[in-house]
Amino acid sequence: MENNTAISSDEQRYQVRKLEITDKNKGFMELLQQLTVCDSITDEEFQKRFEELQSYGDDHVICVIEDVHLSKIVATGSVFVEKKFIRNCGKVGHIEDVVVDSSVRGMKLGKKVAGFLVDHARLTGCYKVILDCSDDNKAFYERCGFKQKEIQMVKYFI
Amino acid sequence: MENNTAISSDEQRYQVRKLEITDKNKGFMELLQQLTVCDSITDEEFQKRFEELQSYGDDHVICVIEDVHLSKIVATGSVFVEKKFIRNCGKVGHIEDVVVDSSVRGMKLGKKVAGFLVDHARLTGCYKVILDCSDDNKAFYERCGFKQKEIQMVKYFI
Repeated sequence: MENNTAISSDEQRYQVRKLEITDKNKGFMELLQQLTVCDSITDEEFQKRFEELQSYGDDHVICVIEDVHLSKIVATGSVFVEKKFIRNCGKVGHIEDVVVDSSVRGMKLGKKVAGFLVDHARLTGCYKVILDCSDDNKAFYERCGFKQKEIQMVKYFI
Repeated sequence: MENNTAISSDEQRYQVRKLEITDKNKGFMELLQQLTVCDSITDEEFQKRFEELQSYGDDHVICVIEDVHLSKIVATGSVFVEKKFIRNCGKVGHIEDVVVDSSVRGMKLGKKVAGFLVDHARLTGCYKVILDCSDDNKAFYERCGFKQKEIQMVKYFI
């Protein structure tokens, strides 16, 4: 009984939804800084990129989890849908930029983000969803139903 | 002198350019079948997907190499540009579906395709370009200037 209350309370507190333009004021960019190099950007730059991504509709979705007690974004991840000619004009979901705030790790919020993005890829008709990660994160994605397949190669310009 | 003539002749014969809608009649889909599962599609399905991808402009480009003697597409690869919030609203190029016809392998056409796609990513302002490949193709992409970084995880829906 106590456990159920705790779960229900957590579900109310940590709300999973799509990115909204006001999330810049809820620490969205600061959260991304825990992932990689991410300088602060102006409100105008944020709005411009937000609108560019919105114009893709269901082909580019950013998931966030808000701690509604603190009005703070504590987890995020994105998925975009690539359209191909192979596989009978098939589509592939690409998951990118998944990060959970260090203060709430261990609460399965990462799994919720991954689940949201995987569901989105499935519902938009993708035949598979892929992502690149470090060896350290392999076990996490295996728990989310992923399997290792290929290797990622990169070429930096800057 | 003979070598120079051979090189010049090859350059004239194997022309590198963007995909055109008439390439379906030049064996483009049959070439993709050498890469993976790729059923034949109708002209209407091809045109619809072609127009969808065209609507992305420079954010999704498919490179082909045509053997102009045979009017046959003998190599291809695609790149799409993902827009992010990280890295100061940075962009990342994703290379996909690179394949060279088995009859012309060893002529460095794959390297030409990769070079075209890398150049496109650089010119559209990407800070890096990435791709996933098998271990077998790692050495090829290293010759194209790539380095291994992460691992690719996949979840299939069908």
